[in-house]
Amino acid sequence: MSSQFGHQLKISIFGQSHSAGIGVVIDGLPAGEPIDLDEVAAFMARRAPGNSPASTARKEADIPQILSGLYEGRTCGAPLAAVIANTDARSGDYAAIADKPRPAHADFTAHVKYGGANDVRGGGHFSGRLTAPLCFAGAVCAQILARRGITVGAHAATIGTTFDESFDPVTVTADELRSVSKKPFPTISDASAEAMLAEIAEAKARGDSMGGVIECFAVGLPVGLGEPMFGGVEGRIAEAVFGIPAVKGLEFGSGFYGSTLCGSENNDPFRVVDGRIVTETNNHGGILGGITSGMPLVLRAAIKPTPTLMQEQQTVSLSLGENATLPPKGRHDPCIVPRAVPVIEAAVAAVLLDLWLESGDFPKGA
Amino acid sequence: MSSQFGHQLKISIFGQSHSAGIGVVIDGLPAGEPIDLDEVAAFMARRAPGNSPASTARKEADIPQILSGLYEGRTCGAPLAAVIANTDARSGDYAAIADKPRPAHADFTAHVKYGGANDVRGGGHFSGRLTAPLCFAGAVCAQILARRGITVGAHAATIGTTFDESFDPVTVTADELRSVSKKPFPTISDASAEAMLAEIAEAKARGDSMGGVIECFAVGLPVGLGEPMFGGVEGRIAEAVFGIPAVKGLEFGSGFYGSTLCGSENNDPFRVVDGRIVTETNNHGGILGGITSGMPLVLRAAIKPTPTLMQEQQTVSLSLGENATLPPKGRHDPCIVPRAVPVIEAAVAAVLLDLWLESGDFPKGA
Amino acid sequence: MSSQFGHQLKISIFGQSHSAGIGVVIDGLPAGEPIDLDEVAAFMARRAPGNSPASTARKEADIPQILSGLYEGRTCGAPLAAVIANTDARSGDYAAIADKPRPAHADFTAHVKYGGANDVRGGGHFSGRLTAPLCFAGAVCAQILARRGITVGAHAATIGTTFDESFDPVTVTADELRSVSKKPFPTISDASAEAMLAEIAEAKARGDSMGGVIECFAVGLPVGLGEPMFGGVEGRIAEAVFGIPAVKGLEFGSGFYGSTLCGSENNDPFRVVDGRIVTETNNHGGILGGITSGMPLVLRAAIKPTPTLMQEQQTVSLSLGENATLPPKGRHDPCIVPRAVPVIEAAVAAVLLDLWLESGDFPKGA
Amino acid sequence: MSSQFGHQLKISIFGQSHSAGIGVVIDGLPAGEPIDLDEVAAFMARRAPGNSPASTARKEADIPQILSGLYEGRTCGAPLAAVIANTDARSGDYAAIADKPRPAHADFTAHVKYGGANDVRGGGHFSGRLTAPLCFAGAVCAQILARRGITVGAHAATIGTTFDESFDPVTVTADELRSVSKKPFPTISDASAEAMLAEIAEAKARGDSMGGVIECFAVGLPVGLGEPMFGGVEGRIAEAVFGIPAVKGLEFGSGFYGSTLCGSENNDPFRVVDGRIVTETNNHGGILGGITSGMPLVLRAAIKPTPTLMQEQQTVSLSLGENATLPPKGRHDPCIVPRAVPVIEAAVAAVLLDLWLESGDFPKGA
Repeated sequence: MSSQFGHQLKISIFGQSHSAGIGVVIDGLPAGEPIDLDEVAAFMARRAPGNSPASTARKEADIPQILSGLYEGRTCGAPLAAVIANTDARSGDYAAIADKPRPAHADFTAHVKYGGANDVRGGGHFSGRLTAPLCFAGAVCAQILARRGITVGAHAATIGTTFDESFDPVTVTADELRSVSKKPFPTISDASAEAMLAEIAEAKARGDSMGGVIECFAVGLPVGLGEPMFGGVEGRIAEAVFGIPAVKGLEFGSGFYGSTLCGSENNDPFRVVDGRIVTETNNHGGILGGITSGMPLVLRAAIKPTPTLMQEQQTVSLSLGENATLPPKGRHDPCIVPRAVPVIEAAVAAVLLDLWLESGDFPKGA
Repeated sequence: MSSQFGHQLKISIFGQSHSAGIGVVIDGLPAGEPIDLDEVAAFMARRAPGNSPASTARKEADIPQILSGLYEGRTCGAPLAAVIANTDARSGDYAAIADKPRPAHADFTAHVKYGGANDVRGGGHFSGRLTAPLCFAGAVCAQILARRGITVGAHAATIGTTFDESFDPVTVTADELRSVSKKPFPTISDASAEAMLAEIAEAKARGDSMGGVIECFAVGLPVGLGEPMFGGVEGRIAEAVFGIPAVKGLEFGSGFYGSTLCGSENNDPFRVVDGRIVTETNNHGGILGGITSGMPLVLRAAIKPTPTLMQEQQTVSLSLGENATLPPKGRHDPCIVPRAVPVIEAAVAAVLLDLWLESGDFPKGA
Repeated sequence: MSSQFGHQLKISIFGQSHSAGIGVVIDGLPAGEPIDLDEVAAFMARRAPGNSPASTARKEADIPQILSGLYEGRTCGAPLAAVIANTDARSGDYAAIADKPRPAHADFTAHVKYGGANDVRGGGHFSGRLTAPLCFAGAVCAQILARRGITVGAHAATIGTTFDESFDPVTVTADELRSVSKKPFPTISDASAEAMLAEIAEAKARGDSMGGVIECFAVGLPVGLGEPMFGGVEGRIAEAVFGIPAVKGLEFGSGFYGSTLCGSENNDPFRVVDGRIVTETNNHGGILGGITSGMPLVLRAAIKPTPTLMQEQQTVSLSLGENATLPPKGRHDPCIVPRAVPVIEAAVAAVLLDLWLESGDFPKGA
Repeated sequence: MSSQFGHQLKISIFGQSHSAGIGVVIDGLPAGEPIDLDEVAAFMARRAPGNSPASTARKEADIPQILSGLYEGRTCGAPLAAVIANTDARSGDYAAIADKPRPAHADFTAHVKYGGANDVRGGGHFSGRLTAPLCFAGAVCAQILARRGITVGAHAATIGTTFDESFDPVTVTADELRSVSKKPFPTISDASAEAMLAEIAEAKARGDSMGGVIECFAVGLPVGLGEPMFGGVEGRIAEAVFGIPAVKGLEFGSGFYGSTLCGSENNDPFRVVDGRIVTETNNHGGILGGITSGMPLVLRAAIKPTPTLMQEQQTVSLSLGENATLPPKGRHDPCIVPRAVPVIEAAVAAVLLDLWLESGDFPKGA
């Protein structure tokens, strides 16, 4: 039990890769918020497969149907429920999985946990497809945040061994973040995009796959979001972000690199600038003591390489209890990092709205 | 609101650095479990200050008083509450903090969040001292796990630029983990300990501080702990570990490094060994799809350098709204990494017990 | 935020009376449980309107579509999501509500709470229609309980001033409970059913409505379900039962009547019968200290009379801020008690399964 | 696991009747609220035993020690923890309980649930003594509410067969509620107090005990507290109130009586009075659709008669598995209703504050 997260805002995700549908229930949204469904669709399209040579050939219309929660175009206080039908599911592709768990997938662990009753088709509930409803939820939250001056934006910071440029963590702006979201490939530098696409294409040609790191920023945050200790911004974002398949690492601000610095290098001095208290540097990534400092939020998530490969792999037969081989697999993403960029944004936006609601300072009706 | 974590097991921590006491309430422990309080004290002593040249001069007896939850030496089904009195608190040391927030501390964000009502003495509720009751809770959970064959153990993987050796993530044993916990300085390699102590001493001499990375393992886990999506082992551990002050990064298995690999390098092939399904390598860190695979759990947490310095620092005066300087500070840890090692273990042990209870498969009365 | 309840089992309900659909997500069901959807439909039919002269003329097919959570006819560990389309919604009927709140409905309070953004059509999210997905959830849980020997059953104990007979709270059997569920009108005594129907018909003829009391039993419970204090069976059932519209009172065992007795009359002596510890009487309603005693669970819920009337009522105009009158309303139930009987059963079944899962003693795969 | 309740405000209670101490952690209080500890003590004294002929002879100083959460007399944003030492515990009194469960107590169910590991002394964690920390929490919350115009007050509505007068549920005032709290015996009518005391004395003389009904009001509430469905005010209050030992029934407004009325009798017409929307009658008890209407909150809780008797009772021997008798017991309350009056107030105050915080409309710094 835990396909949901949030406190004041509860986001419950359901569905399996090949069930009749997948969807999300968002309970606790502020009432009276206009939701632009075209904008939501545009957000979701950034995650949709089939848009680039880097992604799976599976086509999904992925038009969410709103079942409840909107009335005359605005949130009405009731849970917002949206469903996406699963139309392009070819179950036959996945028959062998029931017996031969794919390395680095949830097939084996789910099989044991659920006593063999789990839905094995396409990864079942553990499929990356379940990030579509998360994007729906995040897109809705992002609109509510944007109306109040908060913008969340991410980019593919590395893919394999290729690095993108980064934004200045002190001065990064909403416009800069938005500019990345309009690009066909989510990098700051177009040259990096080309290099990454080349690296992905090369891996694909070998039947292999790539991972990478996604860096995400949020600007316009008030000071004071986040709760002490286990309710800190880091922990709350982590709960959501580690819920995204393939995320195996997460750091804030200077993160792992910062742990190699001295305090005198890593500490961010406070300064008064234009009557506002800011920090000169932003190694803390906008979070001090688990609470937002008003500086840009900065985080990076490590995405493991796609487990499905166009190569034979070693596995076991669950029924025979002996070693086995898994044949090369077709339709899949050689690198999900570009598609995961809006998913990370979605998770972060949802958590930030939840924390703002929890703070008791959320400006209703703004 | 969130000085607690857990689902079936709720761990609620309270206290401020200089309040009358600090403590913890652990609700949901299985009943009938003998608790060895000497062993708990030994665990807590690993976190206690004043044990080494690397730690603060503040002495704390830190003997927890058990208020409830034990009956005739065993857990009795009622919440286990323990209190540690704050005896060695010198409030005078911290007077200026109320006006001049320390860089990289929670002083500024807490001041804004709580409208100036927060307890500024020694960091208040945001003090690292609050990890003492977490260690108490973790020590209790660790005993219950150990009785069922699960051992959690960590070491200082890096401090500043000095690396420790690591254990083999496939073959690491409970004995190996326990051996580190008995050392005065928590490294695998004694040479690393010496080098780290030297690096810390050098930083201290400069009035500076160090951070580092703590690596933690758990062995003996059953297959199937963890829940899907946001209830995965990674997310649940993250909620607890990011609740520890100074943690700014967390990765599992091959983590950030793994994101630079190809799928063919990072995937862990399944094999049948002695009739048991295992993986040949352990880049997944014992977690697939958020669920334990039965392989050793492997995680690393990035600890930022101690913010308090024996150097003048730049800050602001909250009352004057202008720039200010903070004089060098005395009594503090130049590097908290060694003391944080058992704290990470505590958080991990608590989460693992919680997940096991939540799974419905916890063997009561074992 | 709170259209959900449960701990190990999270039941999230969404929808408005006239939104595109209503539904439920059940997260945390044990995996591998066969679900008989015909039986679920039969359970839901007991709540469906249009079956008797006592209920509304609105016809609803109310066939739930399963979106996820079942695989090859069994629960698969993923959240079980079901949606019911709203097809027979005549929005025009409800236009005036936006300005003139109906007495004893949520129109006024929802209007203020949501700043006028609430969906006013047919009561929106506060409609009794939302009990259909609750029945779906309860029917699923009841099957899982029945497979393990637990039966939940209720009857209309009073409607207006007419009383039904009751079962003996010590000896009541599963067969007795099931026999009521097969009747067209949910009473133990057929004579009571006739009298109740007559009383309802008389009220309807006057344009008035009736309330009543529903009594619910559960038999076959193990000893030990329920948690201390705020997690007691009474409180947990109350959370679910008070979530059903129109419930304004709830009592367990001898309840309010028992509060007029002396201890020597109300205490239930323990006895050993056939090697099993039972009580001679059952004033405690199967719960002692919040924990099941193994005796039948007994509870009664007070249902207020249907607020909608075929009479003119006094209200206010929200836009004009002055007194107003509400014309008589058509299509409605003059008494919802009979239809609420399975709803109470559903809530109780869901809570009992949740508590069993939480206890750690749930027999998986039974 | 569930010795806690609340959402934005988490109240965790710990302790056993004869453990070293009992206490409470209140997490989520708004920061900056002055707390008058003398007033808290006065509130708690109303619950304390030994004040009247109706209560137990056990003397308890019950002075709570504040461990954390207050700084310079105000809440500081950190969890507020208070501990009450158990000083007057005579364990010897209770030795036989381990083998012979007392009828109508939790002895038997706790024994089975915890496999015999539960603390049997004085009822352990199930003791009425655990309501002392709940009163502490409620007294703190009541001060925060009172500062914002909300007053909660209760009275002994019936004891055994003696009724108290009631307040008019439409016009009841804060002053009326406060007047009861200052009386030595918590009734509106002094004549009722005398009659109740006589009825209790008579029962005591027979070695018997009495129960009763407590009626509680809250005035000054804003419109709009409470969440839909399972988060309604009724359900949330029920969760807290059923956590109080001996509560076996709960109703709101006209409650069970209202279920016998017609809709035309039970519906409360809306009216505009002095520009404010009110209801002419208050059968809804201040809650419509689970949400506060601004009218006085009205609820009644049924308290079962004290189980402990100065009479021999029938029970069983757990060790022998055969019938047994329990000798008459000494030190106990023949009627806990008067002492339970502030406990009900405490639970209601805590829930109302929690709901206000959850609403996002709580006026900080009022």
